[in-house]
Amino acid sequence: MQIVIIGSGNVAYHLAKAFVLNHVPLAQIFGRNEKELSKISEELKIPFSTEKLQDANLYIICVSDNSVEDVSKIISNKNCLVAHTSGSLPKEILSGEYRKASFYPLQTFSKLKSLDYSKIPFFIEAENEEDRQTLFNMASKISENVMESTHEKRKYIHLTAVFACNFVNHLFSRAKEISDSQEIPFDYFLPLIDETVQKIYEIDPKDAQTGPAVRNDKRILELHEQLLKDESLEIYKIMNLSIKKMYQLP
Amino acid sequence: MQIVIIGSGNVAYHLAKAFVLNHVPLAQIFGRNEKELSKISEELKIPFSTEKLQDANLYIICVSDNSVEDVSKIISNKNCLVAHTSGSLPKEILSGEYRKASFYPLQTFSKLKSLDYSKIPFFIEAENEEDRQTLFNMASKISENVMESTHEKRKYIHLTAVFACNFVNHLFSRAKEISDSQEIPFDYFLPLIDETVQKIYEIDPKDAQTGPAVRNDKRILELHEQLLKDESLEIYKIMNLSIKKMYQLP
Repeated sequence: MQIVIIGSGNVAYHLAKAFVLNHVPLAQIFGRNEKELSKISEELKIPFSTEKLQDANLYIICVSDNSVEDVSKIISNKNCLVAHTSGSLPKEILSGEYRKASFYPLQTFSKLKSLDYSKIPFFIEAENEEDRQTLFNMASKISENVMESTHEKRKYIHLTAVFACNFVNHLFSRAKEISDSQEIPFDYFLPLIDETVQKIYEIDPKDAQTGPAVRNDKRILELHEQLLKDESLEIYKIMNLSIKKMYQLP
Repeated sequence: MQIVIIGSGNVAYHLAKAFVLNHVPLAQIFGRNEKELSKISEELKIPFSTEKLQDANLYIICVSDNSVEDVSKIISNKNCLVAHTSGSLPKEILSGEYRKASFYPLQTFSKLKSLDYSKIPFFIEAENEEDRQTLFNMASKISENVMESTHEKRKYIHLTAVFACNFVNHLFSRAKEISDSQEIPFDYFLPLIDETVQKIYEIDPKDAQTGPAVRNDKRILELHEQLLKDESLEIYKIMNLSIKKMYQLP
């Protein structure tokens, strides 16, 4: 099985690393960014190229959703399987005469942060049983948690992830902006943040809600609005409104 | 040292439990809700009353911010220290001729969820050095992490906590609403959520941001908006706008 990874960003790097750590050899890592590719190539001992795409049985496209279609066109090989790693695109976005698939790892990847690949849920979609099995086997080398998913379902998985991860991280950024403005170390909040997450392992988040909004404490809500401005104030208002609606507060 | 806790909610319960587990005896737990008080009393072996407030050196008021002022009036004792546990109220909200203080544990408390009290940051404010020392000693029996804080600073600590905890939990609720609607188990998202939090131990959240908004991927942003409605759609729009502003995207 010859496998090529296309891309040099966070997903490409971590997927390549996950394969290598699990003794799945990669034939090449291919992309445009020579500097990033050479770094990955050196760390993981995988050949790289920015020019000549290696012949392979499986290409895994790890580029941003905007670029998947264009990048998929550079694969001229017909007798191969091509998978993208997007949560939101259909496999049909891939533009070539090869067999098409989706290979979606549900995780947030930053190059600077190592992580435990064995827990990452992988969602697989393919055109036929054999390809499905191939991708299942590949993902299972990395993770204990491999499932099938249609494009329709995958869209909602990605959307849920945006709320539960991307927006949560942005709240951390806005929170840190507030604490930084008063020279309060953000480290103070780490036990609170840990507990916020630990709770939802045991309690439905709807039952775990605390804070002034769910107590409908108008005095505190007004006080907080006076301390905020711009986007943080807008976020504050919308989140409180949304909590009010969810708990049917007056 | 005679200590009375006033209140029967999440904070009262957990604070009482933290004291008892750390061998600080409590003279009484006092409040209005007989059912809750008797449960706490039975579990922690503390006398309770809904009618006669016990004489004490220290009263810790653990009721919602809206009720602190009213509740503080029932303490007629003058030669005692009274502390509230609010993040946002000044100690002067306490209405009586006793010495006043603030004793703020920065944590999210749910009765159903046990937690490690030793990591909770406590923020202390008092009128004089002796009272400050008393509260410091009390908090230090529970936690390794006890600090002073003015009311001005505490307001911002509470506000930061609302973003980093209350709003984060609400995002989990909205995320679960989306995954539930498609019968996708919310458990799939737990490794992602764990990693989102693990990241900020190592990377500034601003540098850890991932997702379609920070990639300015308009196609996905539009697709997601089509899948959403009501409050979740409003949250989606504001969060993306806020990300756009923070990263100065076009």
